[in-house]
Amino acid sequence: MANTIRASVIQSCTARFNLSETLDKFENLTRLAKERDGSQLVVFPEGFIGGYPKWSTFSCFVGERISEGRDEFVKYYNAAVEIPSPAIDRIAEVSKATGVFVVMGVIERDIGTLYCTAIFVDPVEGLVAKHRKLLPTACERFIWGQGDGSTLPVIAKKFQSFVEPTRTVETKISATICWENFMPLLRTYYYSLGTQIYCAPTVDSRESWESSMRHIAFEGRCFVLSACQFATEKDYPPDHPVADASNRNPDNVMINGGSLIVSPLGKVLAGPTRKPEDILTADLDLDDVVRGKFDLDTVGHYSRPDVFQLKANISP
Amino acid sequence: MANTIRASVIQSCTARFNLSETLDKFENLTRLAKERDGSQLVVFPEGFIGGYPKWSTFSCFVGERISEGRDEFVKYYNAAVEIPSPAIDRIAEVSKATGVFVVMGVIERDIGTLYCTAIFVDPVEGLVAKHRKLLPTACERFIWGQGDGSTLPVIAKKFQSFVEPTRTVETKISATICWENFMPLLRTYYYSLGTQIYCAPTVDSRESWESSMRHIAFEGRCFVLSACQFATEKDYPPDHPVADASNRNPDNVMINGGSLIVSPLGKVLAGPTRKPEDILTADLDLDDVVRGKFDLDTVGHYSRPDVFQLKANISP
Amino acid sequence: MANTIRASVIQSCTARFNLSETLDKFENLTRLAKERDGSQLVVFPEGFIGGYPKWSTFSCFVGERISEGRDEFVKYYNAAVEIPSPAIDRIAEVSKATGVFVVMGVIERDIGTLYCTAIFVDPVEGLVAKHRKLLPTACERFIWGQGDGSTLPVIAKKFQSFVEPTRTVETKISATICWENFMPLLRTYYYSLGTQIYCAPTVDSRESWESSMRHIAFEGRCFVLSACQFATEKDYPPDHPVADASNRNPDNVMINGGSLIVSPLGKVLAGPTRKPEDILTADLDLDDVVRGKFDLDTVGHYSRPDVFQLKANISP
Amino acid sequence: MANTIRASVIQSCTARFNLSETLDKFENLTRLAKERDGSQLVVFPEGFIGGYPKWSTFSCFVGERISEGRDEFVKYYNAAVEIPSPAIDRIAEVSKATGVFVVMGVIERDIGTLYCTAIFVDPVEGLVAKHRKLLPTACERFIWGQGDGSTLPVIAKKFQSFVEPTRTVETKISATICWENFMPLLRTYYYSLGTQIYCAPTVDSRESWESSMRHIAFEGRCFVLSACQFATEKDYPPDHPVADASNRNPDNVMINGGSLIVSPLGKVLAGPTRKPEDILTADLDLDDVVRGKFDLDTVGHYSRPDVFQLKANISP
Amino acid sequence: MANTIRASVIQSCTARFNLSETLDKFENLTRLAKERDGSQLVVFPEGFIGGYPKWSTFSCFVGERISEGRDEFVKYYNAAVEIPSPAIDRIAEVSKATGVFVVMGVIERDIGTLYCTAIFVDPVEGLVAKHRKLLPTACERFIWGQGDGSTLPVIAKKFQSFVEPTRTVETKISATICWENFMPLLRTYYYSLGTQIYCAPTVDSRESWESSMRHIAFEGRCFVLSACQFATEKDYPPDHPVADASNRNPDNVMINGGSLIVSPLGKVLAGPTRKPEDILTADLDLDDVVRGKFDLDTVGHYSRPDVFQLKANISP
Amino acid sequence: MANTIRASVIQSCTARFNLSETLDKFENLTRLAKERDGSQLVVFPEGFIGGYPKWSTFSCFVGERISEGRDEFVKYYNAAVEIPSPAIDRIAEVSKATGVFVVMGVIERDIGTLYCTAIFVDPVEGLVAKHRKLLPTACERFIWGQGDGSTLPVIAKKFQSFVEPTRTVETKISATICWENFMPLLRTYYYSLGTQIYCAPTVDSRESWESSMRHIAFEGRCFVLSACQFATEKDYPPDHPVADASNRNPDNVMINGGSLIVSPLGKVLAGPTRKPEDILTADLDLDDVVRGKFDLDTVGHYSRPDVFQLKANISP
Repeated sequence: MANTIRASVIQSCTARFNLSETLDKFENLTRLAKERDGSQLVVFPEGFIGGYPKWSTFSCFVGERISEGRDEFVKYYNAAVEIPSPAIDRIAEVSKATGVFVVMGVIERDIGTLYCTAIFVDPVEGLVAKHRKLLPTACERFIWGQGDGSTLPVIAKKFQSFVEPTRTVETKISATICWENFMPLLRTYYYSLGTQIYCAPTVDSRESWESSMRHIAFEGRCFVLSACQFATEKDYPPDHPVADASNRNPDNVMINGGSLIVSPLGKVLAGPTRKPEDILTADLDLDDVVRGKFDLDTVGHYSRPDVFQLKANISP
Repeated sequence: MANTIRASVIQSCTARFNLSETLDKFENLTRLAKERDGSQLVVFPEGFIGGYPKWSTFSCFVGERISEGRDEFVKYYNAAVEIPSPAIDRIAEVSKATGVFVVMGVIERDIGTLYCTAIFVDPVEGLVAKHRKLLPTACERFIWGQGDGSTLPVIAKKFQSFVEPTRTVETKISATICWENFMPLLRTYYYSLGTQIYCAPTVDSRESWESSMRHIAFEGRCFVLSACQFATEKDYPPDHPVADASNRNPDNVMINGGSLIVSPLGKVLAGPTRKPEDILTADLDLDDVVRGKFDLDTVGHYSRPDVFQLKANISP
Repeated sequence: MANTIRASVIQSCTARFNLSETLDKFENLTRLAKERDGSQLVVFPEGFIGGYPKWSTFSCFVGERISEGRDEFVKYYNAAVEIPSPAIDRIAEVSKATGVFVVMGVIERDIGTLYCTAIFVDPVEGLVAKHRKLLPTACERFIWGQGDGSTLPVIAKKFQSFVEPTRTVETKISATICWENFMPLLRTYYYSLGTQIYCAPTVDSRESWESSMRHIAFEGRCFVLSACQFATEKDYPPDHPVADASNRNPDNVMINGGSLIVSPLGKVLAGPTRKPEDILTADLDLDDVVRGKFDLDTVGHYSRPDVFQLKANISP
Repeated sequence: MANTIRASVIQSCTARFNLSETLDKFENLTRLAKERDGSQLVVFPEGFIGGYPKWSTFSCFVGERISEGRDEFVKYYNAAVEIPSPAIDRIAEVSKATGVFVVMGVIERDIGTLYCTAIFVDPVEGLVAKHRKLLPTACERFIWGQGDGSTLPVIAKKFQSFVEPTRTVETKISATICWENFMPLLRTYYYSLGTQIYCAPTVDSRESWESSMRHIAFEGRCFVLSACQFATEKDYPPDHPVADASNRNPDNVMINGGSLIVSPLGKVLAGPTRKPEDILTADLDLDDVVRGKFDLDTVGHYSRPDVFQLKANISP
Repeated sequence: MANTIRASVIQSCTARFNLSETLDKFENLTRLAKERDGSQLVVFPEGFIGGYPKWSTFSCFVGERISEGRDEFVKYYNAAVEIPSPAIDRIAEVSKATGVFVVMGVIERDIGTLYCTAIFVDPVEGLVAKHRKLLPTACERFIWGQGDGSTLPVIAKKFQSFVEPTRTVETKISATICWENFMPLLRTYYYSLGTQIYCAPTVDSRESWESSMRHIAFEGRCFVLSACQFATEKDYPPDHPVADASNRNPDNVMINGGSLIVSPLGKVLAGPTRKPEDILTADLDLDDVVRGKFDLDTVGHYSRPDVFQLKANISP
Repeated sequence: MANTIRASVIQSCTARFNLSETLDKFENLTRLAKERDGSQLVVFPEGFIGGYPKWSTFSCFVGERISEGRDEFVKYYNAAVEIPSPAIDRIAEVSKATGVFVVMGVIERDIGTLYCTAIFVDPVEGLVAKHRKLLPTACERFIWGQGDGSTLPVIAKKFQSFVEPTRTVETKISATICWENFMPLLRTYYYSLGTQIYCAPTVDSRESWESSMRHIAFEGRCFVLSACQFATEKDYPPDHPVADASNRNPDNVMINGGSLIVSPLGKVLAGPTRKPEDILTADLDLDDVVRGKFDLDTVGHYSRPDVFQLKANISP
């Protein structure tokens, strides 16, 4: 067990598209994970900074966009953050102050296009990488652009062993956002770079998400840390669309959580939780990755490069 | 003027997602273009086969799809055609019977994904090529996939001179669908292959469309033949969404036409028309292309390959 | 629902490595699936013909094989079948007599090497294809060879609609054996060929198998029909190794079943069953594949061929 | 509307190749734009300093140049300015005095070669950048050299909000001269750097220019500020060539104006004007850029980098 | 005889899976070969670094792996080395210090998979190449992955003549591990690249091994240097499996050696030795290779490329 | 042991290039093998019919051939047999009479060229196939031509079980002549066709031959039946060249025998014999092939077709 670190997934939500309030939430939750649970790494959900405009249509119809939708987009655009920017700096400061490595979903603004991005923030080095979602799903396609192959990092990070503090634990960390998790070639690419701590920020709160997370953990022989937003109507601006406009209620669930942590053998270590705000913490014994690779290494002894070859284009 | 052919753009619409009826329309309009105007090439609008589901949202919201939307998609999926298939065969038969070269927008079905495609049908050789739209716009992104670089044909086609029937007129034909016309790199690629008859099937019926067609004709030094759908509420199934559900009227305009033909010097030769069903015909003097290239050849003497290089990846 | 067929997965086991007895079982179960449930397609588990030598080690050690292991292999070799051979003919006869399409796991003998194979038997055309497992797992690697890219069929098969008998239902069928289901590139390849009825003969009877089958159904937007063996000690020869030799009991479970059928939206339609012998039957509405592809087509609109390219070498 | 600045395009002409007189005109017009209209940014036409020698041939023939032409070029050469130089300093002084940001077309002298250049002059920082026209058109090719990739700036500039003076408005400004506007790769490059205020100094006064400006605004989702010269025969030296030497008249139009301002959605905000001297002013709501990018970002979500890649060589 | 070098094969074993102790053994044996025998090249057995877990089963059964096996694998995984890594550096240092070229079997760790690898270490250039075993045998298949065609090096190396020190001897060196020696196509490939010093690290200590080494030397017209481990029970950890658990004895033989050196004409130059630790040294007259090729060059005049063609895929 | 046949290799020699006498020898030895040993298959050496002209040079020099050599060739030519021909008929009669399957080396005459051939004669079907040596060695090259890919048969033959006469034993038989045994691609080809009884008629009587036969048996997992000539000077015409013309002695050994039989696990079942005339007989348990393939099938599970591909051209 010496080869172990402690990690958490955070179930929470954006504060009504309000950046400063959301950063406060981030800071409080990160400090709590550190102080209460001793966590060394935390994963926040998809779009935690910037927000996930659930149930919006941005007044888009096939063949038409109207001005209301454009104005809504301006607001959403302004709620997003550039990378780097002061918001990212603040995240890095909290990471530094607590010593916690942060993986977080943010809405990134780059000139005219928004991206659904995950950032990796190191307590010592600050922002070390980002990953832009490759394929937005359905309506997301008219608010977010597509990332390219240049932001598919797998980060090498050394932690102090949680069990034997004098020992160093070497890990590799990646992030796959929401339905990217259903892209088998992307997953294979991450496996091929040796991901061990496979973070999955998401807003998919369906019951079946757990099945997929378990499958991926098993298939990739990696820890899966899936952080989902849990949000109710009161977590959105009062005029935000909801599932049933005739029945608005501050406590109606918008996004239903379901965050969980799974081991490389497919065992659920924590969660899925349905609490509005929750921190799930688990000890990740990195040797479990090796135990799992023993009989299944889909990018090593369990691949057939003579039959199937995956080519990745990682140029910008 | 000897180097001239006669061509038409067809302003019409899909018949309530009904394939057989729409094929009848196609046949009648093609025969009319031939018999009345002597046309040798006709261009039909975007999605003429399969239909353009204007004002639909397919019950998509950011973060949610519901079963009504999926069922609507099944219907739309079934209205699309495979390439090849009997519907394509019928188009080829009409082309053969009339001697008219056909460029037409169709919704193409390929295993699980639909594409917004333009087909090129030759009176002698039948289906010779297709082009899949590279980038659906906004809501279109959840009903159509993205084409790739392998379907960007510029077709070489020899016609009989309309003026001197014993003479052969050599042409090059391409198709760019709707807002693809706003992709400067795609246009440059077509220019670089020598397109002369730049067909632009569309459903963009805004007034400003004419400006873009004129610009493109001038920039590319090519004839632009833009065919737009004109459709009213009665051209859709009765339960189809409309702009204002409280004010349904069979004659309310859904798509407003605006088809036109422009010369390589940016002169409007015919249209824009706002008639519900119309055939615009013009004589295309291919020598005008040369005349235009004299002082502007954006892929030749008017390019700066030392500063800007365009690389196209046309592999599937 | 008109686009529906009815299909079954069979949970059963090989009869003590006895070919003729196992073929009798096959015939009885197939007839029952047809007569009782009206099934049009049945899927049998991995190694149903030939058998799965659970708990054997074939007296292999790292660096040594001893004669007992070689003799055990001779027996196992003789229990396997060639393709074609009289055993395959009998399967084809039953398929013909009942009108049931059969997908079945068999141990195939080819000169000196055994393969873990799935066969596809059509009521009219007889044996139409086979698939050899690409990668045996752990100990399987010293009893079975590796298949190559030439046996990765996706079979196009037209069935009579179960609901509207005058209508034809077009389907595509594939087979992926046991832990091949954890090979993301193989799955992607099958998706790219349009598999809709993804058969998964297996002997993996762990609880977590259900998660993976649900994930795959969802990821691939296909029906997953997983047939697992259920076997007890009495289903093996008396001298066959068992989990605990000190506690032999005819009713001790060797392989624990868990067969199930999942829809393209990840919903479990039948099972998982833990009965020793069971037939699970479900109606497969092929339109559900389209409903699913609407928002997820990992080999169409939800792929990123510019970033990831999968090359398959399917030459022998 | 808080994110708004006020800007003007100046329609005017060079004063008979007279530098000092032309600088006076510049100062007067800039002060007027500021004082009358409150303008914060002004765009002057192509070749405003140095002049556009319309109808000259510089006595060039295919295969021959004669001394008269050479002498004419000496004069034109001397009318041009170096960058920097006292003329540029004076422009900077006016900019500083008025607080107006200036984009202006000048004929630049660099040792033996002239360039058709646009300069960017900031009220605080003075001359901040220049752009040399990449490709002179036709006869221009024997009086001007070609710029290279090192002078393709997009300037980041913060203005005071015109509506809420306490607020800062961040903008990006570029310049594209005359028929450079028909170079799709150059435009794409500017889009890729985030241009929002796309200045288009020109002498193209054809009616169709408006179409192209509208197209570019829409395609690039930027404000287009096109300033054209308006000149009559009296604005040239008396011996300057004219369209019809047999019918010289001081009021004959040499260049016909047509300056205009277009919004990122393709709407004409001001002009086109045909007045001899005119200042067109409009409020530029920078949020309109975002509104436009919402559904069209040709260098972001509406590009296909997997299919088309633009490489720019910006080294000198 | 001037074209002669002196080379040794080392018969020894891994020190109880202990890396540092094994590296000490390596250093001592290499120094002895150099100082006592004057050797210029030494070959160490298969898996010398990392170890060969003879008689283990890693608790694998057909269809089952249990946690004891996984834990055993973690240990074995940790005993393996990455390439490069400090262990490889130390080997290079010894090579440099002694001037001896080293070919050695190591267990290589690459992300999740282990490989049975041979490394080539040059006194001047350090690690120059590696070869991963293409096909593990039987139980090895669940602990090691398969190498691919990209690690099949034949190294060109110039030695000082052992007989005439002023003269340079050009050689080509390859490595084939254990039962790879029974892969006729692999051998042919190495012959085709001109191997002259065919190293064969192994743990096959059967009496018949000598026959195969003689055959290969004759067939390939190369020197064969086969180094086998010799290990007793005391060379393994106390809890390591043995042939007969009821009769453990520190001196029981686990691997029986049999290292030898054969000339290109099939003559045994040294060995086979059955001593626990031994260094066999021979003078290799490279002219013997030519002498042998005179009447048998299986990749030249003694091949039939019109009838048999070998294609090698050496891409990764 | 039920899957067993009994087979013999014959060590003998041609009778002084005398056909009839040699056929008598054949008949006697075959009957003896049958009657004394119960043999069902016999293998005769290379060139048994026609003879092996050991020590001849046919008066060839580099650059010159003289008439004596030509005359010698005429004699040798006449001693050879056509296939078919009366000599072959006689062999078939003996095979029929005794029930023994015969594999025999013969010198075949085909118009102007001689070939070193092996024939396969079945007791029931007579001559069933022949194999022509692909590559004569050294001087053989001026007396024999090269066979091509069309005579590389592997014969399927059913024998009566020697142990349980009511049972049928299925076998596959091939022949590889002399140094063809050093052609790894040829051997691989035979392995790929499933040879189990690998006959090796030869005249290579070196001590090292045994090593190669053992290696091949092990590598190919087949029984190797190597029949070598044993001849003394008296077995040649009196004027035939000898090793030492100054020391002619009727009993001087010309070819030294060494026939042997090896099992698929590399174990020598009979021989090597050095007797002038000898019949070695062994029981071949075909299950040993399967036992051997269990851990080594160089053309099945122990091949790497992704890395190495062997293409055989078997057209005439």
